[in-house]
Amino acid sequence: MFEFQDRKPVPVAILGATGQVGQKFVELLSNHPWFHIVALTASERSIGKKYRDAAQWRMKTPLSEEIADMDVVTPNPNIDCCLAFSALDADVAGDIESDFAKAGKIVVSNARSHRYEPDVPLIVPEVNANHLDLLSRQSYKPGGIVTNPNCVVIPLSMALKPLQDAFGISAVDVTTFQAISGAGFVATTTMNIEDNIIPYIADEEEKIQKEFSKIMDLQCPISAQCHRVPVSDGHFLSVGVTLKEKPDLKEVISCWNGYSPEIQSLQLPMSPQKPLNYFEENDYPQPKLHRDLDKGMTVSIGRLRTCPNMDFKFCVLGHNIIRGAAGGAVLTAELMLRNGQIFW
Amino acid sequence: MFEFQDRKPVPVAILGATGQVGQKFVELLSNHPWFHIVALTASERSIGKKYRDAAQWRMKTPLSEEIADMDVVTPNPNIDCCLAFSALDADVAGDIESDFAKAGKIVVSNARSHRYEPDVPLIVPEVNANHLDLLSRQSYKPGGIVTNPNCVVIPLSMALKPLQDAFGISAVDVTTFQAISGAGFVATTTMNIEDNIIPYIADEEEKIQKEFSKIMDLQCPISAQCHRVPVSDGHFLSVGVTLKEKPDLKEVISCWNGYSPEIQSLQLPMSPQKPLNYFEENDYPQPKLHRDLDKGMTVSIGRLRTCPNMDFKFCVLGHNIIRGAAGGAVLTAELMLRNGQIFW
Amino acid sequence: MFEFQDRKPVPVAILGATGQVGQKFVELLSNHPWFHIVALTASERSIGKKYRDAAQWRMKTPLSEEIADMDVVTPNPNIDCCLAFSALDADVAGDIESDFAKAGKIVVSNARSHRYEPDVPLIVPEVNANHLDLLSRQSYKPGGIVTNPNCVVIPLSMALKPLQDAFGISAVDVTTFQAISGAGFVATTTMNIEDNIIPYIADEEEKIQKEFSKIMDLQCPISAQCHRVPVSDGHFLSVGVTLKEKPDLKEVISCWNGYSPEIQSLQLPMSPQKPLNYFEENDYPQPKLHRDLDKGMTVSIGRLRTCPNMDFKFCVLGHNIIRGAAGGAVLTAELMLRNGQIFW
Amino acid sequence: MFEFQDRKPVPVAILGATGQVGQKFVELLSNHPWFHIVALTASERSIGKKYRDAAQWRMKTPLSEEIADMDVVTPNPNIDCCLAFSALDADVAGDIESDFAKAGKIVVSNARSHRYEPDVPLIVPEVNANHLDLLSRQSYKPGGIVTNPNCVVIPLSMALKPLQDAFGISAVDVTTFQAISGAGFVATTTMNIEDNIIPYIADEEEKIQKEFSKIMDLQCPISAQCHRVPVSDGHFLSVGVTLKEKPDLKEVISCWNGYSPEIQSLQLPMSPQKPLNYFEENDYPQPKLHRDLDKGMTVSIGRLRTCPNMDFKFCVLGHNIIRGAAGGAVLTAELMLRNGQIFW
Repeated sequence: MFEFQDRKPVPVAILGATGQVGQKFVELLSNHPWFHIVALTASERSIGKKYRDAAQWRMKTPLSEEIADMDVVTPNPNIDCCLAFSALDADVAGDIESDFAKAGKIVVSNARSHRYEPDVPLIVPEVNANHLDLLSRQSYKPGGIVTNPNCVVIPLSMALKPLQDAFGISAVDVTTFQAISGAGFVATTTMNIEDNIIPYIADEEEKIQKEFSKIMDLQCPISAQCHRVPVSDGHFLSVGVTLKEKPDLKEVISCWNGYSPEIQSLQLPMSPQKPLNYFEENDYPQPKLHRDLDKGMTVSIGRLRTCPNMDFKFCVLGHNIIRGAAGGAVLTAELMLRNGQIFW
Repeated sequence: MFEFQDRKPVPVAILGATGQVGQKFVELLSNHPWFHIVALTASERSIGKKYRDAAQWRMKTPLSEEIADMDVVTPNPNIDCCLAFSALDADVAGDIESDFAKAGKIVVSNARSHRYEPDVPLIVPEVNANHLDLLSRQSYKPGGIVTNPNCVVIPLSMALKPLQDAFGISAVDVTTFQAISGAGFVATTTMNIEDNIIPYIADEEEKIQKEFSKIMDLQCPISAQCHRVPVSDGHFLSVGVTLKEKPDLKEVISCWNGYSPEIQSLQLPMSPQKPLNYFEENDYPQPKLHRDLDKGMTVSIGRLRTCPNMDFKFCVLGHNIIRGAAGGAVLTAELMLRNGQIFW
Repeated sequence: MFEFQDRKPVPVAILGATGQVGQKFVELLSNHPWFHIVALTASERSIGKKYRDAAQWRMKTPLSEEIADMDVVTPNPNIDCCLAFSALDADVAGDIESDFAKAGKIVVSNARSHRYEPDVPLIVPEVNANHLDLLSRQSYKPGGIVTNPNCVVIPLSMALKPLQDAFGISAVDVTTFQAISGAGFVATTTMNIEDNIIPYIADEEEKIQKEFSKIMDLQCPISAQCHRVPVSDGHFLSVGVTLKEKPDLKEVISCWNGYSPEIQSLQLPMSPQKPLNYFEENDYPQPKLHRDLDKGMTVSIGRLRTCPNMDFKFCVLGHNIIRGAAGGAVLTAELMLRNGQIFW
Repeated sequence: MFEFQDRKPVPVAILGATGQVGQKFVELLSNHPWFHIVALTASERSIGKKYRDAAQWRMKTPLSEEIADMDVVTPNPNIDCCLAFSALDADVAGDIESDFAKAGKIVVSNARSHRYEPDVPLIVPEVNANHLDLLSRQSYKPGGIVTNPNCVVIPLSMALKPLQDAFGISAVDVTTFQAISGAGFVATTTMNIEDNIIPYIADEEEKIQKEFSKIMDLQCPISAQCHRVPVSDGHFLSVGVTLKEKPDLKEVISCWNGYSPEIQSLQLPMSPQKPLNYFEENDYPQPKLHRDLDKGMTVSIGRLRTCPNMDFKFCVLGHNIIRGAAGGAVLTAELMLRNGQIFW
């Protein structure tokens, strides 16, 4: 990584910097070796305030004085940056992100607005980095838009990609136990989640089916049942899968343990040492214990068993705000920088 | 019910009266129109204490002075009662329950010790009341042992029985979200459940498969994935089912709405008005809102949808300590009294 | 109560009927013997919808078909009712409530807008029913505005009133553990309360000091420290008090046990049998066990001890949405009806 | 710290290594620069097992293979170590710790068994390091016993020590919000803490009063009200204090911000950069956000206000398992090593 040491860090903007995912971007990028935050944007009522006053800071790392004193600005596409991370709400993300791309910026977005456009890559860096080639088809060059999938699809596709490569997948069933933080800081349903299960998350089941197919280039039945549970962070999935070939339990576990996608060789700052960690303990993974594994970037798997309905069933856990949102987006940007897809 | 009004209430003992299910038996039977508590048993260290001192009372209904002042006694089968409700731990329940049955008592047990014996009925009153005929094969007459199934199997079998009767079931898949109270008052795993999911409950998946088959007289694939979640009461199930016939969504809902097993006509004290309640709201049922429906005896169902893997998927909720334990056992005893299967 | 049986029920409107307290008013008044709901109002975006669609119903009692089908209307003071219960937000309550009073209606409000006006009674029915005389000073006659205090002040004043009457109070210290539901259905801080304590509730400490003085007609030091805790319902208070006279522990407990304010003799529908319940158990009261005591209207007290700083310390618990909001307001209205202060 | 670099690490035993505090000792000492774990002891039923099988590992840091493969042994005082950290239960700690001390070992204990003996130092390293001089009065030389205080007293004494030094303390009032982990892994009361407050912790209030006096060498009224709350980790305290001198708010805050006890100059491995951190934000500190500050060793303070009853009130937060137990004990041992009070 010699080449980066001689250069100045890449100036980046964070769009929608005061919300849950926006604050996580600020936290992850505050001491990043390659990226330097130059602008923080938010909605109208925060403009002109210091970031410390506009954001109700809820990350565990104390806010640095330098960031705290930055002025929150409007999302003007002429901001002097090469790269913008977007944590915008879907209702405004579409236009703002397009404007930044038109102005020559690379936008790595956590919003769903552009996810389903055929020339917009929907990236899980360990799974489908090759989809970044779609950028060349976009009209925004040298700008471009790259998107981050839904926070359930990310760990699900990471756990299933090695099985798809080795055995072929013919059907998927996923029942989710989704953390409260997935609903953002302000959510009308939150008052009711204490001591409760909410068996519905708007549009989530459809998103999972649609995005999983796009990322995996896979047409097969996929059934999702989504639930909000009283857990602060970490989406937990109970998964069933039917495979084309019929491995035994050991072969499946070996497949996960041996999983080392190409990106691992680059040793990117945000990469975990192991993208997947299979636990042998019969009551692991658990959100409270394992969501933060390797900076919150490792996806944990456990309890592989045969199933009388699907071939196998098992559990998957991923940190929804880090691996499933801000951390995944930062890793994508790191990969793009190494690929020469970000210009500065 | 004229005949009961002229008679004295049935004297009953509660075996294992200080634990979670035992306390619920005390609460439900304290003002029962047909049953009268005459003895409370517990383990060695509680013997000789007043119930108020032996039990750390955790029910919402304040303990009556009369019950509070009762002495806790050893589980002597010569206790002067006709009927014993057992909330004993499985490690002692087997022998004590047999002894009571040999002494001529009817034992209605929540313990698993005798559940799998071929001549011991495993009863969900709305589902397989006819299995009570097995009593005639027992060697204990006039005593006898009747058992209550696992707290997941009860709502599951109630939700699936009408579908079995109407359309035939060929496969079942159930992912559970089980409440903390299911683990009893003292549980080594509880320290870890706050803000967490524990994806393992010892022996639970096997029990569900085994007991469901026995109750439903049904041999078909059934797959269970069990999880403990930070909810105080109410087991929530995400269910998939494949049927032999292929009804549409409306026919399935009608089948639930029209479900009125024979026991309903008896209007027993513990019976809910509707054993099943299907909710049309897209985010119902929820444990906090619906676990207590109709004294905690109604099983709630919601979110019926077609599934690309199984035929249908939907949610089921039942109160694990009431419908799934003490309340179910009391209802069974009420039915047996009406059937003339309890002698006093 | 003969006189009410011959008359038609009092027609009542619920202002702000879709929020947390509004829904509780609907639940409590749906089968009320004296009051009949004739109008449900809400904010602009709900107008014209059926109540079932405008409100996301979160009460445990299922919504009746009759109420579910009512149209939500604008808060027009000409609504044909004698009495309006207000669960309006403070930012709109002031004017709407004044308009209803000017139009001849009695308004019983849970909003803080009019609480501090000298001619507006701030009522805890068991504590200062005599303050209802202030109505005669209002300019709204025959209309009028009566207010309900803050949800901490209600149980606090109920626990301290008998001590004030018997021994005189010279200082009060209260540390609160406030339930999530006190923040309403939509609250920006809720995402953070799971596995957390929030040591600040805007304006709460000032409100407690101010309202306690008004209700108790008492000038003395009162210090409040307010905290939000991850409990669904039930405000728990750790209280210290210094008295003018110096009773012993038994005398204080006797004082609570013997507390029977005048309103008790009326046996109003919403009155609990005992307004205060002192628990002898050393770990009571507990929100989960005791918040619903006697319809949620009884205030629980426990753990009285001497204190080296104040004279005594003890715990108090009251249901914040029932006793501390909707239930308290309904009781006030029942009292006013019996007093002849509501005309219909 | 030159001298340590030339020497082999100090061999240490962990007594009671499988429980909550024991596991935290293992986690903190697994990669410690000065200490090397040579023995792990536990109760009878764990003897002879590998640590991985004896302990149900619940720390976030994955267990190293080296530790996982260690055999659990009986607490034999002849174990070849210089130092033993004790996380033993109080019912066995007394004798075992004495035996280790008699055998020439330094025991740093988290158990309460020896805390109140006049020649046993009860140490908070930042507060009363000078009490380590008591070791010279013990009969165990070269062995000795040093104890760690109760997990509430540690943050309380750290927050109050600078005020005592600067202004003198004349009265203290503390209301606690104690985390679940403080009750250990197995606790009979835990089933009830979800969605609840338990207003009693056995002996806790007495311990706080007694230990605070011993540590601070201070005789003054101290009143404690203890509560268990549904928070996983982090004891939160609402504190009132009356001072002999009368500083203003700024002087108190300055006193905390300037607090730098002598131990800070040693830059010990377990020392936080700042032992106390005062937050200016009006809703800080919060357990979820701040308990892990600086390895969980910083005590957070916030919300200083004047109080009409005491002089000042404020909030204090400390991690109960790290700062309040294992981490505090490790810091004490580090200090003793630097002081030359551990021989190896």
